[in-house]
Amino acid sequence: MEGKDRHELTLRVRYSETDAMGYLHHSKYAVYFEEGRTELFRAQGGNYRRMEELGLFFVVSRLDIRFRKPARYDDELTLVTTLERTGAVKLEHSYELKRGDELLAEATSTLACVNREGKVTPIPDNLTEFTSGPDAESP
Amino acid sequence: MEGKDRHELTLRVRYSETDAMGYLHHSKYAVYFEEGRTELFRAQGGNYRRMEELGLFFVVSRLDIRFRKPARYDDELTLVTTLERTGAVKLEHSYELKRGDELLAEATSTLACVNREGKVTPIPDNLTEFTSGPDAESP
Amino acid sequence: MEGKDRHELTLRVRYSETDAMGYLHHSKYAVYFEEGRTELFRAQGGNYRRMEELGLFFVVSRLDIRFRKPARYDDELTLVTTLERTGAVKLEHSYELKRGDELLAEATSTLACVNREGKVTPIPDNLTEFTSGPDAESP
Amino acid sequence: MEGKDRHELTLRVRYSETDAMGYLHHSKYAVYFEEGRTELFRAQGGNYRRMEELGLFFVVSRLDIRFRKPARYDDELTLVTTLERTGAVKLEHSYELKRGDELLAEATSTLACVNREGKVTPIPDNLTEFTSGPDAESP
Repeated sequence: MEGKDRHELTLRVRYSETDAMGYLHHSKYAVYFEEGRTELFRAQGGNYRRMEELGLFFVVSRLDIRFRKPARYDDELTLVTTLERTGAVKLEHSYELKRGDELLAEATSTLACVNREGKVTPIPDNLTEFTSGPDAESP
Repeated sequence: MEGKDRHELTLRVRYSETDAMGYLHHSKYAVYFEEGRTELFRAQGGNYRRMEELGLFFVVSRLDIRFRKPARYDDELTLVTTLERTGAVKLEHSYELKRGDELLAEATSTLACVNREGKVTPIPDNLTEFTSGPDAESP
Repeated sequence: MEGKDRHELTLRVRYSETDAMGYLHHSKYAVYFEEGRTELFRAQGGNYRRMEELGLFFVVSRLDIRFRKPARYDDELTLVTTLERTGAVKLEHSYELKRGDELLAEATSTLACVNREGKVTPIPDNLTEFTSGPDAESP
Repeated sequence: MEGKDRHELTLRVRYSETDAMGYLHHSKYAVYFEEGRTELFRAQGGNYRRMEELGLFFVVSRLDIRFRKPARYDDELTLVTTLERTGAVKLEHSYELKRGDELLAEATSTLACVNREGKVTPIPDNLTEFTSGPDAESP
């Protein structure tokens, strides 16, 4: 069902994320997209922190961003994150970052599932259930 | 001439740039590439800070990164930045990030020249000379 | 009234904010405190972005942080920001960062009001009203 | 001997480290100071990465910064890092960040030595030698 693979997140541009042009620095878009993936996964019932505690990790293997218009300090933005494809060892997402109706940026990413040693590893069949246990104790 | 359009920069991964996996966070590659462009431009005789003082800016309109292998804290890396094409209003660069002979990441970017109002503007004919004056006074 | 000078903000630790120890990097606390100040000011009816558009800025002149316990990726934290004192040209804030009942960090800061040239300038009498107009047009 | 406890590092302000005021963002000073400590330790013959591989970590327990004057994009800065005191479980450093002769910021920090579980642990007697072995294999 589409609803489960798509998530909208509201973000506000932090002062520390701006640069001397007064714009959201372009390196921060990757930070927002990661937030989008985390919250999409949470909305699906998963827990990425728990996944890492179980010894599985998603690493970004490709990221392609088209910047359309700049965002400024304190802008309230909407990030739409969509899980486009789940392969045996990879996930593909797309992203749209908007301010109201204005499209500010579009992007796609590919993530690979790896183990603690960094070896590519099959994504568990039921990733959401797999990660749904309680967090391990905090240190 | 190739030598003038290609620059090698040595970078060491800062602790603050790592993440909980122990790797250089993927959002930091854009920071390194920007450093590479700045230093390539300086090596060519230009001065990006001076360019901004004159009211011209380069904004990133596209960034496409392929992550091959992770980098870790304190790794000494080599970034090769190449100016691939200069258009009327755009620059295209490519990047290779290496640790010794190992290729860690490859990327390409497109930058657009804009004025203070953010309007796309022709790149001055002799960009290097254009920006070679002294910096304005610090505040 | 105390309520107007004190604000609670909920923050979740981003993956990009962690370091190789798996903790929220200590440089990010300053980012959270700035968020706390922005949201306290908004809750009071002010608008820091508008203030900058009017040519007034707050710059941090002192920041003193005591780190008690680490925060981890995905922790949900509470930041209590308190405006302790308003002087002619300075503001003093205090901060408590907590995870549930656990105190993770305490801090104090001093901010100075400056103009576009960076000169120290009196804080307008009614700062909240002063900044309450609409934002200028986005670029 | 003073020379061994004092280190000068040259840093250039990155565009990504600036904010909408055009200044080095105040949260980045902590990043620079950490660089200063890493390079001071390296100059003494130590290796912080190796130390972590051996299961010992330094965590910042206090950081107190006085910001005197702003730094701007592309400024070349000098950071003087001094190890002021070595206790049983703690290190105290001081920092001066300068642009030529101008003092931009002063700071002090306290670091605590902890083990993998985050418990405070005595600093090994000969920390420099202790950490001077080769790095473990990269992943």
